[in-house]
Amino acid sequence: MSSMIAAFSITPLGSGESVGDLVAETVHIVRASGLPNETNAMFTNIEGEWDEVMAVIKACVDTMAQAAPRVSVVMKLDHRPGERSGRMSRKVESVEHKLSKGSARPG
Amino acid sequence: MSSMIAAFSITPLGSGESVGDLVAETVHIVRASGLPNETNAMFTNIEGEWDEVMAVIKACVDTMAQAAPRVSVVMKLDHRPGERSGRMSRKVESVEHKLSKGSARPG
Amino acid sequence: MSSMIAAFSITPLGSGESVGDLVAETVHIVRASGLPNETNAMFTNIEGEWDEVMAVIKACVDTMAQAAPRVSVVMKLDHRPGERSGRMSRKVESVEHKLSKGSARPG
Amino acid sequence: MSSMIAAFSITPLGSGESVGDLVAETVHIVRASGLPNETNAMFTNIEGEWDEVMAVIKACVDTMAQAAPRVSVVMKLDHRPGERSGRMSRKVESVEHKLSKGSARPG
Repeated sequence: MSSMIAAFSITPLGSGESVGDLVAETVHIVRASGLPNETNAMFTNIEGEWDEVMAVIKACVDTMAQAAPRVSVVMKLDHRPGERSGRMSRKVESVEHKLSKGSARPG
Repeated sequence: MSSMIAAFSITPLGSGESVGDLVAETVHIVRASGLPNETNAMFTNIEGEWDEVMAVIKACVDTMAQAAPRVSVVMKLDHRPGERSGRMSRKVESVEHKLSKGSARPG
Repeated sequence: MSSMIAAFSITPLGSGESVGDLVAETVHIVRASGLPNETNAMFTNIEGEWDEVMAVIKACVDTMAQAAPRVSVVMKLDHRPGERSGRMSRKVESVEHKLSKGSARPG
Repeated sequence: MSSMIAAFSITPLGSGESVGDLVAETVHIVRASGLPNETNAMFTNIEGEWDEVMAVIKACVDTMAQAAPRVSVVMKLDHRPGERSGRMSRKVESVEHKLSKGSARPG
């Protein structure tokens, strides 16, 4: 009954390995979680309860940490307890709807 | 000839107005810039030179600041001088390509 | 034997209450944790294992969520498994040391 | 008459050089700016007008970009137009004051 959206980005530091393969592996972990998710050029967004979202992010960080001595993580959380799930798509639809109506532009 | 991708999110604080309308207005500013951009549930991504990207973000912040006494901004920049543009889509395609080949999964 | 430093910032949204009191309450939670910590103008830094650090941050978010319908969190993690603790102060000392030697300045 | 506090962190990627020296050099640039600033284990905080703060951050990024093919930057801005300067220290003092009074703790 809770709803949190997390945007996170993981950067391995000091690794000689290809970053791209490691990033793809973490995206695979996210998709296998079954939680709503979306990966864009800068962050992966994932929606769920705090504990289930954090478990997925920790699994991704642990995967990175196997290949790199140091891992940097950036996260932004939008936490709205009690709201029904599906916010990840509703937020974008709401902006698009306002823009299509022109209500967002003065004049 | 430079290429920077910025993910940014602007939050008005202490405003009585609808946040949704303000967010939509900043997305309109981003799209009118002509720079490659994409808005998801947590961030807006935009690609270009440092100065042109920062000018767009500043215009968005100024718009928010007209309606709220305080504005919080979170930004993540991926700066790769000398690389050709179009990275915003290439980064996502690269991950999808690796995942479709299964190269990202051990075994 | 692991060492993670987390910088986090929690913003309550849509709350009529004083943000300052809520922020102070979360700082109190952090200090009561016994983990090395430091609060500056923008973030609170805290050092420890992933699980103990995340438990503290979750307690802070839950406190904020009691007073605000929506809570925004920004986190940056510097994860270095296997390194001994005390990195939070060592990182700053290292920069100051380099600056005092002038080794950081060309010429 | 405006007041913005920026917390920023710059990470060089794909560089063989010591990250520590590069970090120290950017801290030197920040201190030479004359703007109020503070460097902790995770971020450097700097206070001023949007344009002057962004000029300092850009100079730091350009310095990093001379030594690394790719530079990642994370920024959080607290923008409060019209407020008098000195917020960076006032924000921390305010939290400490509340904690010392015990007003932040229920019971």
